[in-house]
Amino acid sequence: MQRHSSLDDAADLAAVAALLQIGAEIGVDRLLDSGDTFSAAELARIADLPQAGVDDYLAALVAAGLVVGTEAPGRFQAAEDYPDRRYAAGYLSWAMSANGPFLANAREFLADRDAAARVHRRNGRRVAVSSRWIGERAFYPPIVDRVVSAGASHVADLGAGAGGLLVRLLGQDPARTGVALDSSGAACAAAREAAAAAGVDDRLQVVERTVQSLADDPGPVEGANAVLACFVMHDIVADASVAKAVLGACRDALAPGGFMAVADAVSYAPDPVERRFSALFTYLHASFMSVTLPSERHWLDTFQAAGFSKTECVPLGVPGGRLFVADR
Amino acid sequence: MQRHSSLDDAADLAAVAALLQIGAEIGVDRLLDSGDTFSAAELARIADLPQAGVDDYLAALVAAGLVVGTEAPGRFQAAEDYPDRRYAAGYLSWAMSANGPFLANAREFLADRDAAARVHRRNGRRVAVSSRWIGERAFYPPIVDRVVSAGASHVADLGAGAGGLLVRLLGQDPARTGVALDSSGAACAAAREAAAAAGVDDRLQVVERTVQSLADDPGPVEGANAVLACFVMHDIVADASVAKAVLGACRDALAPGGFMAVADAVSYAPDPVERRFSALFTYLHASFMSVTLPSERHWLDTFQAAGFSKTECVPLGVPGGRLFVADR
Repeated sequence: MQRHSSLDDAADLAAVAALLQIGAEIGVDRLLDSGDTFSAAELARIADLPQAGVDDYLAALVAAGLVVGTEAPGRFQAAEDYPDRRYAAGYLSWAMSANGPFLANAREFLADRDAAARVHRRNGRRVAVSSRWIGERAFYPPIVDRVVSAGASHVADLGAGAGGLLVRLLGQDPARTGVALDSSGAACAAAREAAAAAGVDDRLQVVERTVQSLADDPGPVEGANAVLACFVMHDIVADASVAKAVLGACRDALAPGGFMAVADAVSYAPDPVERRFSALFTYLHASFMSVTLPSERHWLDTFQAAGFSKTECVPLGVPGGRLFVADR
Repeated sequence: MQRHSSLDDAADLAAVAALLQIGAEIGVDRLLDSGDTFSAAELARIADLPQAGVDDYLAALVAAGLVVGTEAPGRFQAAEDYPDRRYAAGYLSWAMSANGPFLANAREFLADRDAAARVHRRNGRRVAVSSRWIGERAFYPPIVDRVVSAGASHVADLGAGAGGLLVRLLGQDPARTGVALDSSGAACAAAREAAAAAGVDDRLQVVERTVQSLADDPGPVEGANAVLACFVMHDIVADASVAKAVLGACRDALAPGGFMAVADAVSYAPDPVERRFSALFTYLHASFMSVTLPSERHWLDTFQAAGFSKTECVPLGVPGGRLFVADR
């Protein structure tokens, strides 16, 4: 085999992403992600599918080196490099699978964005799974570091989705409490389940509300030491008055010494390492989702206008991503 | 920016693949692939879309470094590294977009493959575009080398698709003639158009026929110095009697000194460089398309059983791909 390494990478990445996407579709992504050992029968039971079909899928995962046998006969587990490969696959899954309805209907979107957007919607689960694969490596760790080093005992997460970030934070400190806010009932249900499974449900309050509603009623974030928001604020900051109202309400509700940590994206980051993915991210938001991403300067000005005393901006692992830490 | 290089690759590759996929969907892939310069107005005219939508797409391509401005004001062209990036994107496009209906409905396929296959079909154009992006780099060149070095003057291509390989071969030698055989009327029409555009239509015969039909009537391959087949023979070789009849008819129809060049895939190639993509390719064919890929040994035995005197097997750039050159 005499192939160039980065081109090998493309074939490898494509294969891994497609195989993991199949795992997500049949509902075995959580088991594979857990690193736990499993038998072929357990895999079929979790997928709720006939054994023969799941056996063939398992054989493909083993042939691809994504899953390996263990010392216990008939028991398997994800390979050691699985978390790295899953993170890389997250970008492909987000770009090609979660955004599949945009790509497949690009002609309609370029002809009439709003009409196309009413018809062709993304699958929420595919968006959530790919975002989790990217986020667990690219933006959860720096946020967790901030919360832990600040000793924040009460934490709210806006657009908390399935609650992964809060479950992780509550699991780390038995005295920490949290509020998961999300406008999706399905996401709230998933967050409740995840909290129960992790045994932290007595310390997590789940609130089905929009982020925008905090402008009128900041109750859910009242007294928080940290208010987090991962890739949800860009829906709000385009409108200066809405941004000022929502972020201002969060600031006023924070406990003394509290902070907001907002992981989000800037428009068209020019850095050579970031420019390609940032271009796709910016373009898809603008031309397919009617979301105009702010510049880094615009983000910083928005926090200042909302009354925050000081805002720090650091790059995230995801190209074009930034973590804004705004002090009350 | 402090990110690991192979992970950068994943975000870059995903972004490039999604942006090029949009180009293919709106019909500007041929223009971008050509390397010719173009204006924004020409891009909109070829796409047959409103200028504003195409302008935003062009801006994203420029931001991503896939398209660059030229010395002529208002004129653009694909960046120098575009062919490399398009080749890499081909793997993602094939795995995630062309096979999108398989991935999105994996649960149905694993429950009942044949029922799912009747409902969820791939888009032929997406399969063809991604195969072309991979094939132009990974298997056209070694086949062209064989044809040229053998001085083959009359060449047949089985499953010729849009005729790209034959158009290239006829363009290289004004004395060379060709036969493009494909069972799809749309592919045959595309081959006729491509031949006319390249000015080689007077030397290319297009035949709308299945490969299997050659067993009873080898007329289209009669007297060929070379019979080519790229990733179509795996549909046939699973049945030994069909394989013997079709390949035997091709062998008997070849001119003295003639050969078959078959680019195709082996089942689950174990080489570390090949195993991942080969696993996906093998698994999707078996569990979603009812095609069982042969081993390398099985391929060689099949050519021998059909009467070929000697068959050589060399690896192709696509993982798990092999070029079988079988001498009459």
